[in-house]
Amino acid sequence: MRQAGRYMAEYRALRERHTLLEICRTPDLATEVTLQPVQRIEVDAAILFSDLLLPLEPMGIAFDFIKGEGPAIDAPLRTEADLARVRRFEPREALSHVLDAIGQVKAELAGRVPLIGFAGAPFTLASYAIEGGHSSSFAHTKALMYGAPAAWHAFCALLADLVGEYLAAQIEAGVDAVQVFDSWVGALDARDYREFILPHSRRIFERVAECRTRDGAPVPAIHFGVGTGSILGELREAGGEVVGADWRTPLDEAWAKIGSDRAIQGNLDPTVLLGPLERVFAATDDVLERAGGRPGHIFNLGHGILPSTSLEHVQALARYVHQRTRG
Amino acid sequence: MRQAGRYMAEYRALRERHTLLEICRTPDLATEVTLQPVQRIEVDAAILFSDLLLPLEPMGIAFDFIKGEGPAIDAPLRTEADLARVRRFEPREALSHVLDAIGQVKAELAGRVPLIGFAGAPFTLASYAIEGGHSSSFAHTKALMYGAPAAWHAFCALLADLVGEYLAAQIEAGVDAVQVFDSWVGALDARDYREFILPHSRRIFERVAECRTRDGAPVPAIHFGVGTGSILGELREAGGEVVGADWRTPLDEAWAKIGSDRAIQGNLDPTVLLGPLERVFAATDDVLERAGGRPGHIFNLGHGILPSTSLEHVQALARYVHQRTRG
Repeated sequence: MRQAGRYMAEYRALRERHTLLEICRTPDLATEVTLQPVQRIEVDAAILFSDLLLPLEPMGIAFDFIKGEGPAIDAPLRTEADLARVRRFEPREALSHVLDAIGQVKAELAGRVPLIGFAGAPFTLASYAIEGGHSSSFAHTKALMYGAPAAWHAFCALLADLVGEYLAAQIEAGVDAVQVFDSWVGALDARDYREFILPHSRRIFERVAECRTRDGAPVPAIHFGVGTGSILGELREAGGEVVGADWRTPLDEAWAKIGSDRAIQGNLDPTVLLGPLERVFAATDDVLERAGGRPGHIFNLGHGILPSTSLEHVQALARYVHQRTRG
Repeated sequence: MRQAGRYMAEYRALRERHTLLEICRTPDLATEVTLQPVQRIEVDAAILFSDLLLPLEPMGIAFDFIKGEGPAIDAPLRTEADLARVRRFEPREALSHVLDAIGQVKAELAGRVPLIGFAGAPFTLASYAIEGGHSSSFAHTKALMYGAPAAWHAFCALLADLVGEYLAAQIEAGVDAVQVFDSWVGALDARDYREFILPHSRRIFERVAECRTRDGAPVPAIHFGVGTGSILGELREAGGEVVGADWRTPLDEAWAKIGSDRAIQGNLDPTVLLGPLERVFAATDDVLERAGGRPGHIFNLGHGILPSTSLEHVQALARYVHQRTRG
């Protein structure tokens, strides 16, 4: 999940002068925004500030962010021919600005905390490209998936190739771990996930497994989606040393589905931060108790932080988790 | 789930001349639209065409439907004072047009199939009133819920009273069963559901349990939500002879959570209807096999039918289910 955002005054100030895409595409700005939460909140890692749609543009899928509405693709892909027209690209060239930002962030962090890179996974990227923006039903995406399975698989195989290579490039540039966001894949049931997504997501994790950090260490991968309670076992199968879970499934139940040989990330409901601190702490206690102090629990929110969240609550939450877990 | 909709040419034709709210508020039109699917599709029941927001207006919460965007509340409730200003009303007066439509539909049906009435449940109604329309995070709703629990409970108790009485009035007017739609309650985890919603939803089902049809029979209630895989046990506890499940949880697993002493409604992914018929039938086979031919399975979609659905596919699906289940 992004750490920086509209809940931080310094981020809002920067957004008055720059669009989201300008920040993502300008290494100095992306570096500044990536470091904002690290300076203000007791986080244990920095998360590269970026957007999961960035790879779409060099694929020939132009988009922009519309104020108050989110991403808008200029010409959504709706036919087999649209899918076939998409271009392959070399992330080390087309997205070199992201890799430059990684280098700058790593230099600024100077080893204080590790840096996590990220990319979108096939279903989520495909759904933006096909729907043209946010969707609640994913009707266009699923219609293509069911109606033109060969074109779907070719498109997702290309996405998986590109995302795998993009993550490999991020690792070469210096990130210590990666997150793969299949944010919207919870719209699929287990059967559809297995048929239409699992083989493609697996290729991404296999590509990451081939990589080593600059220190020669393997690179942990975090696999995240929202509303995935029914397909956590399938996400595990696709890959990731860590599987993320949202708040809908209690953490112990989610971990049982993910398997105790994998780590779990989660799973405080981000809206709890909008309530009083006593409630934030009580809900945090519940998450930590369900984790049972076992190694392999990465405490986190179950989804992105909301713009109306108070920074003070986020700061207090991070301190509280550290107090409770560092003994 | 609504049966009529934009996937039917006769509905689209009527919508060229009338808004959604005009149809809901005009008994002749509501009757006509309610009967359209009964005439075209082998359904086993008619579902009253209405909208779950109708009770908001007599509560003093004005709204309209914006083309392409869905419902929009004029002045969303955002504070404790806003919640406290909401008015109680008598559904037999304020929503008499719905009751008139029920009488007309029953007369037209002449006993061919039963008629199902419906209303929204507290979380879903509250979330529309507070967010002002559709939401993905329910940030305003949950902020009030966590931050002003006393005001929240008073508001939901009022909603439960009004919805219970509205359903009682629908039963008096002639419906044979009722559906209670807590469409968006899957945004809550089990703890929050239990604290903030369960007692209020339970009151609605208790009110329905006091009612009898005109023939003196008890009135079955269907309790439905989307993305409720983690709280099906809590929905069961709140009430309903039938609990609905979406497609994310396989039907047999959902039924185990609901309990074999309750009936289940579901759970074909409505987007499957956008694919080829072989896939529709294969997915239907899977649902029916998981139901195992046990009595108490009501075959249905796991959520509303999409506008881009082909009527022919819906017709073929209904015939297929009848062929497979009538032996």
